[in-house]
Amino acid sequence: MSTHYAQLRALQREAATLASVSHLLNWDQETYMPHAAGAGRAEQQSLMAGLVHDRKTSPQLGDLIAACEQDGSLDARSKASVKEMRRDFDRETKLPKSLVEELSKAQSQSQECWKVARAKNDFAMFAPWLEKVMDLTRRKAECYGVPTFAGGVKGELYDALLDEYEPGMSAREIESIFTPLRARLAGLVAAVAQSKNKPDRGVLGLKFSQEQHAAFCHKVLEAMQFDLGAGRLDVTTHPFCSGLAPGDTRLTFRWKTDSFLEPLYGVMHEAGHGLYEQGLPKGDHFGEPLGEAVSLGIHESQSRMWENFVGRSGAFWTWALPHAKKAYAPALDSWTIDTMFRVANIVQPSFIRVEADEATYNLHVMLRFAIERALISKELAVKDLPSVWNSTFKDFLGLDVPDDRRGCLQDVHWSFGLVGYFPTYTLGNLYAAQMWEKINSQITDLDDQMARGQFGALKHWLNQNVHAHGRQFSASELCKKITGKPLSADPLLRHLESKLKPIYGL
Amino acid sequence: MSTHYAQLRALQREAATLASVSHLLNWDQETYMPHAAGAGRAEQQSLMAGLVHDRKTSPQLGDLIAACEQDGSLDARSKASVKEMRRDFDRETKLPKSLVEELSKAQSQSQECWKVARAKNDFAMFAPWLEKVMDLTRRKAECYGVPTFAGGVKGELYDALLDEYEPGMSAREIESIFTPLRARLAGLVAAVAQSKNKPDRGVLGLKFSQEQHAAFCHKVLEAMQFDLGAGRLDVTTHPFCSGLAPGDTRLTFRWKTDSFLEPLYGVMHEAGHGLYEQGLPKGDHFGEPLGEAVSLGIHESQSRMWENFVGRSGAFWTWALPHAKKAYAPALDSWTIDTMFRVANIVQPSFIRVEADEATYNLHVMLRFAIERALISKELAVKDLPSVWNSTFKDFLGLDVPDDRRGCLQDVHWSFGLVGYFPTYTLGNLYAAQMWEKINSQITDLDDQMARGQFGALKHWLNQNVHAHGRQFSASELCKKITGKPLSADPLLRHLESKLKPIYGL
Repeated sequence: MSTHYAQLRALQREAATLASVSHLLNWDQETYMPHAAGAGRAEQQSLMAGLVHDRKTSPQLGDLIAACEQDGSLDARSKASVKEMRRDFDRETKLPKSLVEELSKAQSQSQECWKVARAKNDFAMFAPWLEKVMDLTRRKAECYGVPTFAGGVKGELYDALLDEYEPGMSAREIESIFTPLRARLAGLVAAVAQSKNKPDRGVLGLKFSQEQHAAFCHKVLEAMQFDLGAGRLDVTTHPFCSGLAPGDTRLTFRWKTDSFLEPLYGVMHEAGHGLYEQGLPKGDHFGEPLGEAVSLGIHESQSRMWENFVGRSGAFWTWALPHAKKAYAPALDSWTIDTMFRVANIVQPSFIRVEADEATYNLHVMLRFAIERALISKELAVKDLPSVWNSTFKDFLGLDVPDDRRGCLQDVHWSFGLVGYFPTYTLGNLYAAQMWEKINSQITDLDDQMARGQFGALKHWLNQNVHAHGRQFSASELCKKITGKPLSADPLLRHLESKLKPIYGL
Repeated sequence: MSTHYAQLRALQREAATLASVSHLLNWDQETYMPHAAGAGRAEQQSLMAGLVHDRKTSPQLGDLIAACEQDGSLDARSKASVKEMRRDFDRETKLPKSLVEELSKAQSQSQECWKVARAKNDFAMFAPWLEKVMDLTRRKAECYGVPTFAGGVKGELYDALLDEYEPGMSAREIESIFTPLRARLAGLVAAVAQSKNKPDRGVLGLKFSQEQHAAFCHKVLEAMQFDLGAGRLDVTTHPFCSGLAPGDTRLTFRWKTDSFLEPLYGVMHEAGHGLYEQGLPKGDHFGEPLGEAVSLGIHESQSRMWENFVGRSGAFWTWALPHAKKAYAPALDSWTIDTMFRVANIVQPSFIRVEADEATYNLHVMLRFAIERALISKELAVKDLPSVWNSTFKDFLGLDVPDDRRGCLQDVHWSFGLVGYFPTYTLGNLYAAQMWEKINSQITDLDDQMARGQFGALKHWLNQNVHAHGRQFSASELCKKITGKPLSADPLLRHLESKLKPIYGL
């Protein structure tokens, strides 16, 4: 290996090691940190963020990247890695430190204001902060610059933000996928609404203890082969997965005594992310693009696949129900595999994205994509957000939004300047569906395996075809490499239709 | 406030904030870190240690300290603080980075070897590593230099190490306190051994669950007014207290189902340290000497006071027994306050320091002090350690050591180069006893208060007289300021004799 490349890898690893310390600070804050430690934690975080930024923008790093770009002796994977390092370095150095600091401060204050505004259902209170964060986010996008796509097609300002979460993707491409998907989803949702053949919701009202949920969820984690010797499962208000360091992937879940399925699907979702983190080649490549996830969309494809394609299947419940009956005994004794399968696949428009079902979820995402794109381009003014949200919601989901708390104030993302993030949720569903068809064509008895609680072949397939590559390929390259085709909405629609039509007798 | 002093405080706070991140890494490693994260954690720790060392030895810090030393406008507290900053800076900069790195590496390897050697009872295996660590520790002491004490008295090399844990203390002074103490303790222990009036040990064999221990220990923490909104209690193999950041003091305890008193006294001990950490003025002075503990001896005085002077008193058991009976119901129903008081004060020579009683504990410490002092001065060679340990043990505690596992291999300290640390355990007992007499002369109904579970006046006294000062005064200054006298062994002997004589009918 060339000396420059070895030095470059060492620098990258060191920056990532520092960043991983920040991740532990975050994890601890969400799990075990005493309340009174909050102010001190903010000081720790800001200091670490500055140190990480310094490393990621150091001239020495830039020089080494430049030297490696000239190095003809590198193999294809290393070349791909250097290309991604250049991308990261250029993005990081394009932002003036003053903007980073201003944004970081505004984010934190804006988020605090959002919490209160949401609780009080008071959009007017939040509007000035949203205005400010959107201005700073637009300035950030301008620093990155509007990207140019294949064929010399010039993008839009929003693309510069999207590029952070889904590199190489454009708003135009998303729109071209989302628009037909929306029409067909709306038709499916409307047909379901007309159906007289509704699942029995009785099981959703049962109450259970944290110990019962934990026992069942650990059983599922074990079957999924999430390595608890290199990870954990803890309880937080908002579930998340932190792939915080090599050998250290931590999941959290939220348990509610009045919801049976939420902890299960929360854990399967986070464990899907967790298996990706555990499957990345961090031993050799921690801190290098080769040891990192491709994009948020691909990350989400892994969580959605386990949550929806595995967890909401009849095959899964064939294996899982006896374990659930044991963990929650005797409450589930009278429930059958078929009734569990049906209740896990209830489709019904509702107001809150994070509580939405597998089909309507994507409509929530499309709404947000359309709105945030218009906010960035200034076609939509912040003051008009509630009314446009509500009319679009009526249009997409057919419901009248009763208040902003259940409308445009429900999500944290915009208060924090996360613009370009939402569409990756639906992209994840699409990638998952397209991969799922390929997987089933290669593991032809996957349903039988799952019904026996054997998820090893699936995990192995994902390890080899998705996880092992790190960022060697972009999301669209990976999609083509795996499935032979560019991303399309068809597989997701086929998946939903083939599952929902028999359930609802359509 | 002068600009230089403000800048100096900011720099100190920043270094301490970075160090506090290291403390979280440590805490997490002992509590929740997955096993597979060990190698990555070592990388995180070593990177953070380097960053902290850089800050603590930066020329900018040195310049600001020098400027503040010339600043006539500082008040007495600030002057004392600058003096302590100078002390820390000089010590930190006296060590060449190469030695710091060599020592850090050797410590880690030596500790790993010690673990195996102790398990295998194989001193010969450990001897080369101990040799190496002692050499490096001696070199470290030489870098610090032999200190000179009041009246121009030149110290010895050991004092340079002792100075890290108990600033200003000398081996000669410790010897002058320990020697008469040992003779009188030995007499007391011998008299106890002759007594026919032994406490009933039955309660020590009862088995309980972690939940029962946790319920009782939380009751005690609450009565001690340890703030759980600014701290935690978790379970680890080795109990400790980490005052890791402002508003963030974390205690751990070890529970054994076959020991009733160990969790209780472990928690009271750590909570004593914890109350000190919570009582330090970290809000205003985090990272400055004014927000830090005086010495290990003073820190230990706080833990020992709560563990032994409070927790092993009849007054404490008057309050605590009903709570213990409830938490451990019905196992303790037939036990009385008097039998609990007696069993909590059993005195009997044994081999393991950490399991020793309040009286013989100090003999274990004196043995280690004598031996490590001789190792540093080379009067004792590493190869002769086991035989000298065993003969001294026979001399001090009257028992024949059966093997090195229960002899010179039992403690981790020397494998880690912690030399000069042991005597602070007994200094803590002595400071505690001397303060305890003063406290009882000022809070004249303290026993009655404790019997009612009221520990607030005691905590308040410690907050005002010990905690609030930070490092404004040295340990000996603080001792004189509080008790009016220099440190003496008499109060500890009075305490032990007045308690043990009635129990054992001496």
